[in-house]
Amino acid sequence: MANIGVIGSGSWGTALAWLLHNNGHKITLWSYLTEETEMFRQHHQNVDKLPGVVLADDVVFTCDLEESIRDKELLVLAVPSPAVRSTSRNMKAHVRPGQIIVDVAKGIEEATLMTMTDIIEEEIPQAEVAVLSGPSHAEEVGKGLPTTIVAGAHRRETAELIQSLFMNPVFRVYTSPDMLGIEIGAALKNVIALAAGIADGLGYGDNTKAALITRGIAEISRLGTAMGAHPNTFFGLSGIGDLVVTCASVHSRNRKAGYLMGKGYSMTAAMEEVHMVVEGVYSARAGLKLSEKYQIEMPIIKVVNQVLFEEKPADVAVNELMQRMKKDELGAW
Amino acid sequence: MANIGVIGSGSWGTALAWLLHNNGHKITLWSYLTEETEMFRQHHQNVDKLPGVVLADDVVFTCDLEESIRDKELLVLAVPSPAVRSTSRNMKAHVRPGQIIVDVAKGIEEATLMTMTDIIEEEIPQAEVAVLSGPSHAEEVGKGLPTTIVAGAHRRETAELIQSLFMNPVFRVYTSPDMLGIEIGAALKNVIALAAGIADGLGYGDNTKAALITRGIAEISRLGTAMGAHPNTFFGLSGIGDLVVTCASVHSRNRKAGYLMGKGYSMTAAMEEVHMVVEGVYSARAGLKLSEKYQIEMPIIKVVNQVLFEEKPADVAVNELMQRMKKDELGAW
Repeated sequence: MANIGVIGSGSWGTALAWLLHNNGHKITLWSYLTEETEMFRQHHQNVDKLPGVVLADDVVFTCDLEESIRDKELLVLAVPSPAVRSTSRNMKAHVRPGQIIVDVAKGIEEATLMTMTDIIEEEIPQAEVAVLSGPSHAEEVGKGLPTTIVAGAHRRETAELIQSLFMNPVFRVYTSPDMLGIEIGAALKNVIALAAGIADGLGYGDNTKAALITRGIAEISRLGTAMGAHPNTFFGLSGIGDLVVTCASVHSRNRKAGYLMGKGYSMTAAMEEVHMVVEGVYSARAGLKLSEKYQIEMPIIKVVNQVLFEEKPADVAVNELMQRMKKDELGAW
Repeated sequence: MANIGVIGSGSWGTALAWLLHNNGHKITLWSYLTEETEMFRQHHQNVDKLPGVVLADDVVFTCDLEESIRDKELLVLAVPSPAVRSTSRNMKAHVRPGQIIVDVAKGIEEATLMTMTDIIEEEIPQAEVAVLSGPSHAEEVGKGLPTTIVAGAHRRETAELIQSLFMNPVFRVYTSPDMLGIEIGAALKNVIALAAGIADGLGYGDNTKAALITRGIAEISRLGTAMGAHPNTFFGLSGIGDLVVTCASVHSRNRKAGYLMGKGYSMTAAMEEVHMVVEGVYSARAGLKLSEKYQIEMPIIKVVNQVLFEEKPADVAVNELMQRMKKDELGAW
């Protein structure tokens, strides 16, 4: 049994708190807003974002960041990606040297092109930072449906500690040393999911979606490999696995926002309709900048940026893409 | 404009005949049964298998194999995989030296572990054999929805000829020298689709399906690479691309058969309910034999065989799989 602090009480933080408590650990769940802590104290669940996943009586709910960090063997950082830097800054004073922080937010900071764990390491240099990522809708994890995920860390022992704390018969945790590959795949797959959603909104079928998924992960893999990641990571759980879930699922906000844009909504209108944070919109710009910095051709990410920020009509964009894709699959000829 | 014979008038043969005619080619479409030829002559469409995709008046419909082969610059072999050997044998006398045959059937012959193009080359040694494969539901190709596919051939010029004949603004053809990789991926993805269908039938969600897809293509890639294929082919259109379509789609017979087995149907009952050929059932045994021959661990294909042929309950099978999957994603630690 471990003492674990979960920082962030949205749908994913809540699902992981539920899972870790079921695994026998003692959980403290931190919310940013006092009203959220009050909601959890009263209903023992996130009524808005993950209704029905009920946390046990001995889970501690708090707004006090220090309380959620002090004496914890593991911290799970589950705030939205745009809040990772500010939250890390606030955590810094309370984190002891070598304390393990597992990031579960996905994204790349546009201004710096840093991954989430880069940011946490910069803000909390005394922490040991790791990442947990993969095809894992909170709604399904909260129902105990079989799920696989990958824990990336600098040190093997850290990854295996995280594995042992999270793993159970329906939640399988793989380990990996390739934190960079995991995070690049996790962030940029949201941009491909926007493209897949756009194709759905245009009334295209599974063939088109499969083309976007396949060529999408290929371009992410080219970029990530140039940045120093392991190419196979992109064909693993945090790459193609997460991309497939995001593109296919009714739960995905990115896919839904794309769908609305395919139906003619502007980016702003689509984001308003979806209500929640659409991470792919932020990651799209970061992906474009990375492709320029590393001089990697990324036609899908480029076209998504044109639809999002340059008012290119969605049908024109997808048609151009179909005609631009290169013709030798392996580059072997 | 080329003279093209399409051998086989099921849904895929019909869709390709329609596509090639739209590209400006002269088409002869061969059916195995005289009743089918009569149906095409009367209705200009496959009323049962691809209703609504209407072939033009100048398409020639025939039951005469020689007529479909003589003077053709390209032959498209679109019969079901179990009929490829016998059809090739019947074609042999009519095929001229160097005549190009593009196979579009997917499968591995269980008794010999040969791919479809291996079989055609054995039966018609004077032909130049190639393959066309990728995420391409006939129903969507027949509506002109954007589709990508890969043409594999021994010689680059052959692949590029095929590319030029099939390509149009909504049907993008990539080329590849890796015929073996294309065919292994195309055949074995049907087995993974059965597993994904089983998980759906058991009521599991997108997380489980993504795990099966991701780990499934990883095991196919391990096998194919050991057999001499290019590893990246499995992460391309004919590998992960086709797998994604097959696992997600309402059109897929393999997924549907698996779904029924997840609901408790026996293999035989599921195949009766689906009515059409479920290629994954044949490929499952071939995959198991290949994994033994090349000594590659293929846990998903093994478990699917147990469900199909050893009456292992589907829920027990999937649960075992979740607990057997190994824990280091890249094998790097």
